[in-house]
Amino acid sequence: MNYRMIGRINSFILLIEALFMIPAMLLALADRDFAVVRAFLISIGIIAVVSGLLIFLCRHAKRGFYAREGFVCVGFGWILMSLFGSVPYWLSGEIPNALNAVFETVSGFTTTGASIVRSVEDLARATNYWRCFTHWLGGMGVLVFLLAIAPIGGESEGFTMHLLRAESPGPSVGKLVPRMRRTAAILYIIYVLLTLFDFLFLLCGGMPTFDAICTAFATAGTGGFGIKNDSLASYSPYIQNVCTAFMLLFGVNFSCYYLILLRQVRNVFRDEEFRLYWGIVIASTFLIAWNLRGVATALGYTSFGETLRHSAFQVSSILTTTGFVTTDFDLWPTFSKAILLCLMAIGACAGSTGGGLKCARLLLLVKALARNIRQLLRPNSVKVIHINGRQTDERTVTNTNAYLAAYVAILVVSILLVSIDRVSLITGSTAVLACMNNIGPGLEVVGPTGTYADLSALSKIVLIVDMLAGRLEIFPILILFSGRTWKRY
Amino acid sequence: MNYRMIGRINSFILLIEALFMIPAMLLALADRDFAVVRAFLISIGIIAVVSGLLIFLCRHAKRGFYAREGFVCVGFGWILMSLFGSVPYWLSGEIPNALNAVFETVSGFTTTGASIVRSVEDLARATNYWRCFTHWLGGMGVLVFLLAIAPIGGESEGFTMHLLRAESPGPSVGKLVPRMRRTAAILYIIYVLLTLFDFLFLLCGGMPTFDAICTAFATAGTGGFGIKNDSLASYSPYIQNVCTAFMLLFGVNFSCYYLILLRQVRNVFRDEEFRLYWGIVIASTFLIAWNLRGVATALGYTSFGETLRHSAFQVSSILTTTGFVTTDFDLWPTFSKAILLCLMAIGACAGSTGGGLKCARLLLLVKALARNIRQLLRPNSVKVIHINGRQTDERTVTNTNAYLAAYVAILVVSILLVSIDRVSLITGSTAVLACMNNIGPGLEVVGPTGTYADLSALSKIVLIVDMLAGRLEIFPILILFSGRTWKRY
Repeated sequence: MNYRMIGRINSFILLIEALFMIPAMLLALADRDFAVVRAFLISIGIIAVVSGLLIFLCRHAKRGFYAREGFVCVGFGWILMSLFGSVPYWLSGEIPNALNAVFETVSGFTTTGASIVRSVEDLARATNYWRCFTHWLGGMGVLVFLLAIAPIGGESEGFTMHLLRAESPGPSVGKLVPRMRRTAAILYIIYVLLTLFDFLFLLCGGMPTFDAICTAFATAGTGGFGIKNDSLASYSPYIQNVCTAFMLLFGVNFSCYYLILLRQVRNVFRDEEFRLYWGIVIASTFLIAWNLRGVATALGYTSFGETLRHSAFQVSSILTTTGFVTTDFDLWPTFSKAILLCLMAIGACAGSTGGGLKCARLLLLVKALARNIRQLLRPNSVKVIHINGRQTDERTVTNTNAYLAAYVAILVVSILLVSIDRVSLITGSTAVLACMNNIGPGLEVVGPTGTYADLSALSKIVLIVDMLAGRLEIFPILILFSGRTWKRY
Repeated sequence: MNYRMIGRINSFILLIEALFMIPAMLLALADRDFAVVRAFLISIGIIAVVSGLLIFLCRHAKRGFYAREGFVCVGFGWILMSLFGSVPYWLSGEIPNALNAVFETVSGFTTTGASIVRSVEDLARATNYWRCFTHWLGGMGVLVFLLAIAPIGGESEGFTMHLLRAESPGPSVGKLVPRMRRTAAILYIIYVLLTLFDFLFLLCGGMPTFDAICTAFATAGTGGFGIKNDSLASYSPYIQNVCTAFMLLFGVNFSCYYLILLRQVRNVFRDEEFRLYWGIVIASTFLIAWNLRGVATALGYTSFGETLRHSAFQVSSILTTTGFVTTDFDLWPTFSKAILLCLMAIGACAGSTGGGLKCARLLLLVKALARNIRQLLRPNSVKVIHINGRQTDERTVTNTNAYLAAYVAILVVSILLVSIDRVSLITGSTAVLACMNNIGPGLEVVGPTGTYADLSALSKIVLIVDMLAGRLEIFPILILFSGRTWKRY
């Protein structure tokens, strides 16, 4: 194991984190909230010292860097980043409990949006800014950012590939251009531009600048931390519709935007994952609107248009795993709730900032199943799975199946552990689903109007692991805890 | 497609069903319950006529019989058997609604034990006998029975193999002896002997002969239809313990008993699935007993022994997918209920009469996952999965993964459809879990004290398909509904 290289990369991750804390500190300074300024200043100091120490200790790194190092690096990096990112919360006294502060930070970086804060409106503006910014940084990934800007590890393709593979979502990492480092840069440029557009559209709706910045960050990372206690319910229909649109846009595979830039729009509309994603959005929105027709008045929706707006907003928010809410969907009929639970597990497209199983995996699993049935009928035929007209590598199929198995296993074990808490089965299982898929709100106690504050310490630790496992797509976390990883060969 | 051969085999299945109705009819005659006698007599007549017609129409069958024919034959056979098996229920007026009668019969043959009868004590003895007997016949499989006794299809190994593969549970069908037909006969001999032992042990506990016969049938098939409204709650602790023991015995892979007959006891204890199965039983029993310690008095359990007895009984009943109950486990704390839900999905051993995913599949999925993690760490290594020291065929691994995917897909779609019914999420999802895994009781409305009577027609139809898919391990049912099956090649 190349410990020194891992240490080096982790020191850079921490450095970036410290740099990104500066705007939050300046905001607190502008607000003359000196307790928060102090908290951020001390945090930045601590991180700088630790980072410097790591750089010094790991200055003579060897070159060997393989898949194993990539996974360990990403796993460790995210844990470190979350631990240090939580320091300002409890130093400022805004989240006095350390476990809660870590929960909130992990929830931020993993773009989950599950909160233990009972009233976000009582937090300082700088704290709310930092909460939403963690979504933005975690959304596209801190290592992708690092690789996009810094020439660490030289120009070795293997090095970059192993890191990107371990951090990026989806069954296979697509290269937009032959060089992985340039791919990372292109992804971030698209990400920044889309966030900017989102911000501008929100401003046009009359949203205050600070609210627009925070909401744009939380939407871009498909995170879901709000700065109002009722999430987005009190904003105007225009703003809610802008959020619906941008949540859906951030849930699309970013390589589609690259294709659009290359004027290959036709290829985007031919993409099978793209079609599946929009098909799910449209079908779910109308099914829920249809299911709500009888109870709309009781829920306070005055017209079919309003029902459709709430339906589309919640579908987009859950499918892209953002987690914003405009209405308490825990009051919806069972069929609508069951649809939302399915969307929770499916998630957004691969290569987007969204979480969940991903539409690409769903597509692959369905195609693999269809192939399997064909093979049962004609045992001697050998069939290859095609996606977008191209052959899929058998190893991708195997990995996707293993992913499903690992996903179900972690889900089951987590629900068992959380249910020791004596919460109801629905609370426990939706809390796990919402955290593991990086969504945020579940049902009942952890529903749109609730928080995760009242769960036990054990449950919070389980959910922290689930959020990390969900964001990093399980394997980096499993590998970190596997004895075999630490064996010398 | 060899329609004539399929018709021929189906006619034999119906013939066997008609023969097995005769004891029920004689019982009704002894009880002088002439409405029921008439119902059975007419049913036998109808089945005999249809069967005779089929034999006549399909008298010139070709020899070609492949995997496709095997699946279609089993799928059709079970549907026909269920439809005709339900005739006595509604002819006698004991279950006047035809859909309910079919539900009850499918629940019987698939050894689910989910009932729409509100008070089984009001049914005629003959009807209760027939309900429990359907468990026994469905448990080991009617085609296995047919192959064990009749020389249909000549002595072709391929023919026998395709039929057994399609009907028998588990990821791979083990041959006990080189000839499949002899394997079927050995399985049935073991099955009859174990049922007999169960019956004798129950008699020793002072159970009335009729009760003992019905309970032995329902235990052997891991079915769970009771002849009392409170299932087994009012019987003595001795009888409950006998049932616990025999449910567990019928959940073991029957090839283990064959090994014991061959005096290879050591190999049985070395079997990985066998160990996993007993490990799950012991761990779950003690975890639930520990979880119940605070609430035992509130539930009316007077001693730790009694808590342990109820815990062991419910664990065995759910894991082996029998579905008998001695206590209302819907009142248990969440952790205990969550354990039971996991056991529901895991199920018994492959090659037993139990349902669920099967311990062998769980073992294979876990091993495939571990291999996958190793391969992520060292991408160029190729590893083979070993079970019981032997290499596992890669196709078995692929099939098991596809099985998991199909299982999850059917589960999700069924829960969505059932939730249109406006039942609670817990009722809907546990109803689907309990039917698909052939268990019987779920939670809340369909819990230990409830019935399936109040669900809508749509839900009942979905659950009927789920029960058949669960018992026949999904693929025969999927294949029946797949357009590709019916294409001419």
